Amino acid sequence: MLSKKDVTDLVYERKRQAGLSWASIAEGIGMSEVFTTSACLGMNALPRDKADLLVTNLGLPQEAAVTLAEYPTKVWDRSVPTDPCIYRFYEIVGVYGDTLKELVQEKCGNGIMSAIDFHMEVEKVPNPKGDRIEVRMSGKYLAYNAW
Amino acid sequence: MLSKKDVTDLVYERKRQAGLSWASIAEGIGMSEVFTTSACLGMNALPRDKADLLVTNLGLPQEAAVTLAEYPTKVWDRSVPTDPCIYRFYEIVGVYGDTLKELVQEKCGNGIMSAIDFHMEVEKVPNPKGDRIEVRMSGKYLAYNAW
Amino acid sequence: MLSKKDVTDLVYERKRQAGLSWASIAEGIGMSEVFTTSACLGMNALPRDKADLLVTNLGLPQEAAVTLAEYPTKVWDRSVPTDPCIYRFYEIVGVYGDTLKELVQEKCGNGIMSAIDFHMEVEKVPNPKGDRIEVRMSGKYLAYNAW
Amino acid sequence: MLSKKDVTDLVYERKRQAGLSWASIAEGIGMSEVFTTSACLGMNALPRDKADLLVTNLGLPQEAAVTLAEYPTKVWDRSVPTDPCIYRFYEIVGVYGDTLKELVQEKCGNGIMSAIDFHMEVEKVPNPKGDRIEVRMSGKYLAYNAW
Amino acid sequence: MLSKKDVTDLVYERKRQAGLSWASIAEGIGMSEVFTTSACLGMNALPRDKADLLVTNLGLPQEAAVTLAEYPTKVWDRSVPTDPCIYRFYEIVGVYGDTLKELVQEKCGNGIMSAIDFHMEVEKVPNPKGDRIEVRMSGKYLAYNAW
Amino acid sequence: MLSKKDVTDLVYERKRQAGLSWASIAEGIGMSEVFTTSACLGMNALPRDKADLLVTNLGLPQEAAVTLAEYPTKVWDRSVPTDPCIYRFYEIVGVYGDTLKELVQEKCGNGIMSAIDFHMEVEKVPNPKGDRIEVRMSGKYLAYNAW
Amino acid sequence: MLSKKDVTDLVYERKRQAGLSWASIAEGIGMSEVFTTSACLGMNALPRDKADLLVTNLGLPQEAAVTLAEYPTKVWDRSVPTDPCIYRFYEIVGVYGDTLKELVQEKCGNGIMSAIDFHMEVEKVPNPKGDRIEVRMSGKYLAYNAW
Amino acid sequence: MLSKKDVTDLVYERKRQAGLSWASIAEGIGMSEVFTTSACLGMNALPRDKADLLVTNLGLPQEAAVTLAEYPTKVWDRSVPTDPCIYRFYEIVGVYGDTLKELVQEKCGNGIMSAIDFHMEVEKVPNPKGDRIEVRMSGKYLAYNAW
Amino acid sequence: MLSKKDVTDLVYERKRQAGLSWASIAEGIGMSEVFTTSACLGMNALPRDKADLLVTNLGLPQEAAVTLAEYPTKVWDRSVPTDPCIYRFYEIVGVYGDTLKELVQEKCGNGIMSAIDFHMEVEKVPNPKGDRIEVRMSGKYLAYNAW
Amino acid sequence: MLSKKDVTDLVYERKRQAGLSWASIAEGIGMSEVFTTSACLGMNALPRDKADLLVTNLGLPQEAAVTLAEYPTKVWDRSVPTDPCIYRFYEIVGVYGDTLKELVQEKCGNGIMSAIDFHMEVEKVPNPKGDRIEVRMSGKYLAYNAW
Repeated sequence: MLSKKDVTDLVYERKRQAGLSWASIAEGIGMSEVFTTSACLGMNALPRDKADLLVTNLGLPQEAAVTLAEYPTKVWDRSVPTDPCIYRFYEIVGVYGDTLKELVQEKCGNGIMSAIDFHMEVEKVPNPKGDRIEVRMSGKYLAYNAW
Repeated sequence: MLSKKDVTDLVYERKRQAGLSWASIAEGIGMSEVFTTSACLGMNALPRDKADLLVTNLGLPQEAAVTLAEYPTKVWDRSVPTDPCIYRFYEIVGVYGDTLKELVQEKCGNGIMSAIDFHMEVEKVPNPKGDRIEVRMSGKYLAYNAW
Repeated sequence: MLSKKDVTDLVYERKRQAGLSWASIAEGIGMSEVFTTSACLGMNALPRDKADLLVTNLGLPQEAAVTLAEYPTKVWDRSVPTDPCIYRFYEIVGVYGDTLKELVQEKCGNGIMSAIDFHMEVEKVPNPKGDRIEVRMSGKYLAYNAW
Repeated sequence: MLSKKDVTDLVYERKRQAGLSWASIAEGIGMSEVFTTSACLGMNALPRDKADLLVTNLGLPQEAAVTLAEYPTKVWDRSVPTDPCIYRFYEIVGVYGDTLKELVQEKCGNGIMSAIDFHMEVEKVPNPKGDRIEVRMSGKYLAYNAW
Repeated sequence: MLSKKDVTDLVYERKRQAGLSWASIAEGIGMSEVFTTSACLGMNALPRDKADLLVTNLGLPQEAAVTLAEYPTKVWDRSVPTDPCIYRFYEIVGVYGDTLKELVQEKCGNGIMSAIDFHMEVEKVPNPKGDRIEVRMSGKYLAYNAW
Repeated sequence: MLSKKDVTDLVYERKRQAGLSWASIAEGIGMSEVFTTSACLGMNALPRDKADLLVTNLGLPQEAAVTLAEYPTKVWDRSVPTDPCIYRFYEIVGVYGDTLKELVQEKCGNGIMSAIDFHMEVEKVPNPKGDRIEVRMSGKYLAYNAW
Repeated sequence: MLSKKDVTDLVYERKRQAGLSWASIAEGIGMSEVFTTSACLGMNALPRDKADLLVTNLGLPQEAAVTLAEYPTKVWDRSVPTDPCIYRFYEIVGVYGDTLKELVQEKCGNGIMSAIDFHMEVEKVPNPKGDRIEVRMSGKYLAYNAW
Repeated sequence: MLSKKDVTDLVYERKRQAGLSWASIAEGIGMSEVFTTSACLGMNALPRDKADLLVTNLGLPQEAAVTLAEYPTKVWDRSVPTDPCIYRFYEIVGVYGDTLKELVQEKCGNGIMSAIDFHMEVEKVPNPKGDRIEVRMSGKYLAYNAW
Repeated sequence: MLSKKDVTDLVYERKRQAGLSWASIAEGIGMSEVFTTSACLGMNALPRDKADLLVTNLGLPQEAAVTLAEYPTKVWDRSVPTDPCIYRFYEIVGVYGDTLKELVQEKCGNGIMSAIDFHMEVEKVPNPKGDRIEVRMSGKYLAYNAW
Repeated sequence: MLSKKDVTDLVYERKRQAGLSWASIAEGIGMSEVFTTSACLGMNALPRDKADLLVTNLGLPQEAAVTLAEYPTKVWDRSVPTDPCIYRFYEIVGVYGDTLKELVQEKCGNGIMSAIDFHMEVEKVPNPKGDRIEVRMSGKYLAYNAW
């Protein structure tokens, strides 16, 4: 069967050949850009009907839909990422980690922001001094149990 | 002289005694919560006038203002954070790192989102299914040079 | 102010002098053994009224209650624990990690067992072939978002 | 000969094609879900008769039974797991490791809970506030020698 | 499609066969030596017209131009490099890292030298006591935000 | 005796009190900014007469001159630096390490650029699009032996 | 209270002053050399009556007996030991680890040698070609569960 | 030529097919179980005549004898082993490392037990309370030089 | 083209078939044993004429000479070597590293021994108490710059 | 009692005050420079009479002789040293490790060079092209056992 990696490679190939953007691929299946991209990269599972739609839209082999709908094992190789575009987000967690904890817990109590019941958007915001990237994360507040 | 760590301890002490929130401390100096908190935790430098104001508002020793305005050396001890509230953000970078790169670069071109010309907000968003935390990051897009 | 570590040391001291068990300390404040012990070791926050009760029961200084009720920063020093009693649990996660994932996700869907909305019990179960330890964990199932 | 990895791949393939659950595979050989799954993932050895039964039930090549009955070398690649579903169990060991040690040793004496003479169950517990996962571990208490 | 690695191998092969230098390859496309070399090694993206020119000049397959113009994922395998020629630069960062920070920040304020809006030159400087290598780096100063 | 660390602390203190820059400290002893700063930070040894001069200029205790002239043991704690201003230089070595090796060896032959017979300058270069930092490194070319 | 480390330091001091050997200390409390030494180094708990006897024999403060009888947390700092005398044992595990597994499991079945229900002896064996050290380990065979 | 790994695979295959034990393979060439096993696993070199005998006994290709007699490069992948059967030996080194050093050096002087001029035996010792594994190591005492 | 690794494999093959020693291979090209061996193992570049000679002497394919003369990228996989024969040299650096630094710098001044302008010899020295290995290293003294 | 570290500090202090070299300290007790230095740095044990002599010569407190004669625990903090003078020796082991193994084993057989029955000398060799450092190591050849 096709592995998640195989499907990612196929998606990249079709995307390049057809000159598609992640935005249009996402729109084609009626889901967000971040979620669609992460599913195509093997880091999330598409609902089965969305997987079928994606397969049709991109002309992928039918069995790719099964793979896209499978629950992924989320693995990353480097505990510290090296690519500068990804490292900067790691750096933000390093620099602002304690601050995030202080503010999450001041606003909501003893708990965390979920990374599971979670969604995220990425946007380009034009700016005369230089365009900006805006990332919005939203996660459910989860309170620690006392028992 | 007082170290960044000394000042952080003093701030925590006054904050606890006076029952202050980070929100009110930030408001008292007219700066954002995230920036003010990170500066109090030693991860950013306050502009000198803001440092003076903070020292007055919290009743800190005068020299604490010098320390708060010093350029910090940003250090974190663990390449993988252990506290669950911070780890979840690390996990987001691990799971969505490649996705963030794909979307930043699709929207803007070959480059990164700056973590220096950068600001961030944290908010609690009430929700009947359970309150949510919203984090908004905004960083300047920086294009790679070709020369 | 007293740190979490200071309070842990004080609790150990009183516990030893008074010949108390974790079971009786927990019973004295009407909470479970696991939660009470973890809070005394600085890994959880006691509700304030429980903290006050603990301070009274053990004859700790009054300010220890503030510390016990503070939200902890959960830190562990070794990514692989060395003490044999703790290592065995690490080994279980290594050996059965993929199995746990398969079964959690077969039973509930694409998601995880929460370690935040979570409780755990430890019990000794007498057995003629040699007593056994029984550990029961219960965590809320959290489904991954699709958006 | 077929490696443990080869057999795992074959099991996954048949499981997917036949739409089987781990629960039904386990039931088919009269063993528990956790143990059966872990053996199919190459982390435990099936008794030979159970291996033969599994091979018959799933229509695997006969020699797969030899492989399933072989004593495995238990290896995991990451000292800190990355998949969120597995990481949460690692986090539990990090947060509650010292607590587990305190309670095991308070209840039984100077010793450990065995991870060898050990069994575990995973269950879904319906709950109006959201279903829960329950994990029950049972390991033999082993006392340290003094000599 | 050709991967960045495939193209690097092809470039090395043609370079060796034709007895070319990086200097002449760079000159052939009208870009600097450092940038051209790094793009051929897969660590930078060539502008598409330069990529086409390079492909023509070296007689590479046409699709190599697409690969050369793709945005690379910048990965290095060793957090501490072992090759002595590269290690010496790592050593310079280790020995002079704090000095670089002091001087950058004394001259410009609280900020950093960008590694993105960045260019570099390498030159041989003849010297009677032994030739010298001169490396010149230029990066845009980026000031930390306060908000 | 005063350790390198003690002297660094004293220098920082005098520098802050007197409002001195590294540039003026260096000028006061007739040496370069980079070298003087690195020696004050304990990463290089000042010639004894320069050390005496520095001690006089800054009003340090006489024995600090002995310490400043001692051969340092150069140690850094993190194989990957975390402060963003230093990390960017580490990133440059990661991204351009192989390129530097290619060009050093194309220009000079099989060898390295010395980090011992080495000097470096840091300069601010005003620029209408934003000021730039320029770093110039010069190291002696050392050829590998064949014997 | 005295920590395990405090007691170890006291034992070393008395041992040196009185010119005692570990052999004689062990004999004085009627236990083996290996166990007695490891308990004095904080890696095992002495039975309380043995702890009292040791305290009397060595003239330690009375409370040292409580410490010696406490259940230790077994921690080692280096995953790879550096002292040559200890490293050689690590090397033996590296070189012969798979061999030990093959032979333990060929002789007894799918299981392990316990390191808990375990004892060890160290002896010097005179030999004309050079004296030898003989180490004898004995651990209970523990079979893996199938359930 | 056959690599050490190739030969190990061949030995496993013949061993399984012929239902041989390491004990009988060792006996067949008149060498010990531990040494024979470790040589078959590629961690030791067989004397050439023994290698020839082994090849004959197991019906291996003739050139396997050359490989078996070659001096191996001893490599292990994990600084901390994960398989429980091997980890327990690692744990013993961690827990008893300092004790081993104390006793080796008390009995013989400043030196080590050799892991080169070394032999080891593994035995099963029947015991009514549960069989035991006995491991006997013997290494030459080597004194540190003073010069 | 042949990689360094390919050529190393070819050299090993011819060496074994022809029953050659490194000594004789080195003599055949008029270079030292250490340098010749290291070049054959891919860690140094042979002068082109020596590479041609080696290729002729061993009957290697002609293009192997190009590979042997190429500047190698020196990479080692393990920061701590495991093979005992190599580890002992690592151990010497660990135990005597500070001593080497003290003596190099006492004899020559603030600087280092070059590992680039460097040569080394290995010899067997017969000795009635057991033969000895003698390793002689010679590296150019390089003084640190002050500027 | 004085620790090894305390004695090292005292030796450094006396050495500096008296303007002594390691060479003269070694000569004063009739032992080699390398061994004497390493013993003063806490990495070797002086014979007791030599320790007494050293204490007398340097005017150290009498109990320092006991410490100097104690068997050290040899520990180094960094698996990869950072100081350039020490790193170069580490680099030599990395680059030439396999070569050293090939030549030791070609000359003597399957075995190693001992780092225990070992001595080393460091010398400055004047040279018109630049002085050189010469390091001579001599270790007993130890053959692997076959049993």
